[in-house]
Amino acid sequence: MLGQTLDSNSAWLSARLADRGVIPLYHKTIADDLQATVTALTLAIETAELVIVTGGLGPTLDDLTRQAIATLMKKPLDMHPPSLERIRQLFKRLGREMPSSNRSQALIPRGAEVLNNDWGTAPGIRFKSGKTTVFALPGVPYEMENMAERHIFPMFDRGTGLAVVVASLHTFGAGESAVAETLGDLMQRGRNPLLGTTVSGGVVTVRFRCKAPTSKLAHKQLSATVELVKQRLGPLVFGEGTVTLADAVGELAKAKAKRLVTAESCTGGLVAKLLTDVPGSSAWFDGGWITYANAMKNRELHVAASLIEKDGAVSESVVCAMADGALQRSEADFSVALTGVAGPDGGTEEKPVGTIWIAIGRRVGERRGVIAECFRFPGTRDRVRDLAAKTALNLLRLELIRTGRSMWSVRQ
Amino acid sequence: MLGQTLDSNSAWLSARLADRGVIPLYHKTIADDLQATVTALTLAIETAELVIVTGGLGPTLDDLTRQAIATLMKKPLDMHPPSLERIRQLFKRLGREMPSSNRSQALIPRGAEVLNNDWGTAPGIRFKSGKTTVFALPGVPYEMENMAERHIFPMFDRGTGLAVVVASLHTFGAGESAVAETLGDLMQRGRNPLLGTTVSGGVVTVRFRCKAPTSKLAHKQLSATVELVKQRLGPLVFGEGTVTLADAVGELAKAKAKRLVTAESCTGGLVAKLLTDVPGSSAWFDGGWITYANAMKNRELHVAASLIEKDGAVSESVVCAMADGALQRSEADFSVALTGVAGPDGGTEEKPVGTIWIAIGRRVGERRGVIAECFRFPGTRDRVRDLAAKTALNLLRLELIRTGRSMWSVRQ
Repeated sequence: MLGQTLDSNSAWLSARLADRGVIPLYHKTIADDLQATVTALTLAIETAELVIVTGGLGPTLDDLTRQAIATLMKKPLDMHPPSLERIRQLFKRLGREMPSSNRSQALIPRGAEVLNNDWGTAPGIRFKSGKTTVFALPGVPYEMENMAERHIFPMFDRGTGLAVVVASLHTFGAGESAVAETLGDLMQRGRNPLLGTTVSGGVVTVRFRCKAPTSKLAHKQLSATVELVKQRLGPLVFGEGTVTLADAVGELAKAKAKRLVTAESCTGGLVAKLLTDVPGSSAWFDGGWITYANAMKNRELHVAASLIEKDGAVSESVVCAMADGALQRSEADFSVALTGVAGPDGGTEEKPVGTIWIAIGRRVGERRGVIAECFRFPGTRDRVRDLAAKTALNLLRLELIRTGRSMWSVRQ
Repeated sequence: MLGQTLDSNSAWLSARLADRGVIPLYHKTIADDLQATVTALTLAIETAELVIVTGGLGPTLDDLTRQAIATLMKKPLDMHPPSLERIRQLFKRLGREMPSSNRSQALIPRGAEVLNNDWGTAPGIRFKSGKTTVFALPGVPYEMENMAERHIFPMFDRGTGLAVVVASLHTFGAGESAVAETLGDLMQRGRNPLLGTTVSGGVVTVRFRCKAPTSKLAHKQLSATVELVKQRLGPLVFGEGTVTLADAVGELAKAKAKRLVTAESCTGGLVAKLLTDVPGSSAWFDGGWITYANAMKNRELHVAASLIEKDGAVSESVVCAMADGALQRSEADFSVALTGVAGPDGGTEEKPVGTIWIAIGRRVGERRGVIAECFRFPGTRDRVRDLAAKTALNLLRLELIRTGRSMWSVRQ
């Protein structure tokens, strides 16, 4: 509740329940407070047929879920000897004495069912209230996940009569509204599959949700719409599901047997970091230069000092010289270079914070070509660097797709 | 709601409100559904004096916050011409035509106040309902954060009657239980200031929360305990509050007028990226090399091919040669080099995934020295790279603190 941890449990449970056709109504995060827990539980039971509580089953005084359930059920808490024994054994296996505070974890509201925890001390609890089934699971992610797999998901394995399948397509290079406009009628509310868009760090994602009586039918309808969206959006789409821009670049480089190098100034290694996030990137990535100081641009990438003096480090001529220098100093087929003003200081009227030049260098046989483009990214230093790096990856991706080189300024 | 993204906005807002003595009652995540949004808003207004909504202000049909507020207030949505003009100008600056769907973002429920968004299209909304103030902000984190800083937090700057002040000290290099053991009695529950520890990505943070009738008193008590903890933990502590390991390195380098370079293999630019996250890093960071391929290690850092052949790329001799090569190729005072097996593939019995060699190079006058250490980090590729990069920064930090060089193997 105080913002020190992110709630990944709700996301994990929701994704897996949706896969099974169970649509979550809401997630709620509450403080370690008995009355707040009882109120939240009461409201949830009135609203939904399935309520899952995670956390608050630990041994310390701020763990209040057991007591909240007992209060709600108007039942006492009874000691559950098999659970107590299991907890004692767990400590024994670790070669430790069970602290007395852990006894409280074997307390179960009278009339509730005990769910075994294979991985930790806290047993889970299941009870019915009217038509609603309530599960209380520990908050430790891997204990919770194991218990949900064993006790909750099998409830829906015989089918809910409804299958819900989801998919996502990621795009880069156009705004959310432009993507939505291209999709037009496909974005209509109430449509099945239902489409929505979200934006995160410049990436606009189209999300799909499809309902059908059977999973097979749902998948069929879903993939037909996914294909349609891919056609409409064309090269804006760089991947599906968990695919990143760097993954897409890597896939293309691998498929076309091209090797890449980077030459970075303002992004200070971020582009290379993103490329090497990809497992197996050594198959297509050679390395790069971080030429943050002008002396490094000159010494390592042979950018003429006179050029930097004349045009400034943030200029078309310098970014092109960096991209070309990186090709000269390596055997790579493609280079990407960036130089700009990431901020917060260093901006001028002519080159305000956010001004970034990006160049792509390409080697074809004995010849080398370079193209460059200037961008102006809004926001903080982090944001400017993030957008610059992703834009560079996207330009690399588009150049890897492209064949021919008529638009390139060819260098000696 | 379907588990495709984690809610970081609630955590961010909660942490900053708690800092100001405002304790959040609950977070709730709801689906893109008009009725669900109206119901959740109604309930929140009944429960709390401050309600913050994030998201649902985009230009597409699944963005329903504006409409939900209008429904709740029983007021129509009016076009707000200054917002429309601001949005149009934003597109103009990007050299794009404003799509017609963005017009909807300038719709404001009659009687509500408009909050300017400096970084994106969606304006925010503020209105009162009884005693409760409701804010609706865009869901894009940096837009939301900027608007919260400008419009929400200043509400509490005059104080809330009870002063709750918080602080945090970040440590690197020891486990959570070792830190807790060193703190001993200071970790007692019920103590004021109250201490706790959290771990994230290898950084163990000691968190302090102090309550007192006045802010002055709270700050006084807090800083006495913070000082005590600093003394007990010594050089394990690298910073307070928002300070990162890279910030700490930068502060030291600046204070001692030392310049740094990086030579990275397995981390692929991550160490340099972290260093250049620091605004003004050009004052002490020259740049670096990403020598991912062995040919790059040889060509750029003069690591002998025979050395790589004999000892392997992941070895003490190679990491030392990389650190020394980076000093040779630059005028920097310190270099940091990494080579290792980040995984998921490439591990052997002798050098399993997670094995990382880290070296620090140091120039003193005409002489250069190098020290190296081998680490074995657990976890996924991302986790191994993150821990390796942070460990490298921490070694740099400790070497920047240290004076003398008796322990160094001196190279020609």
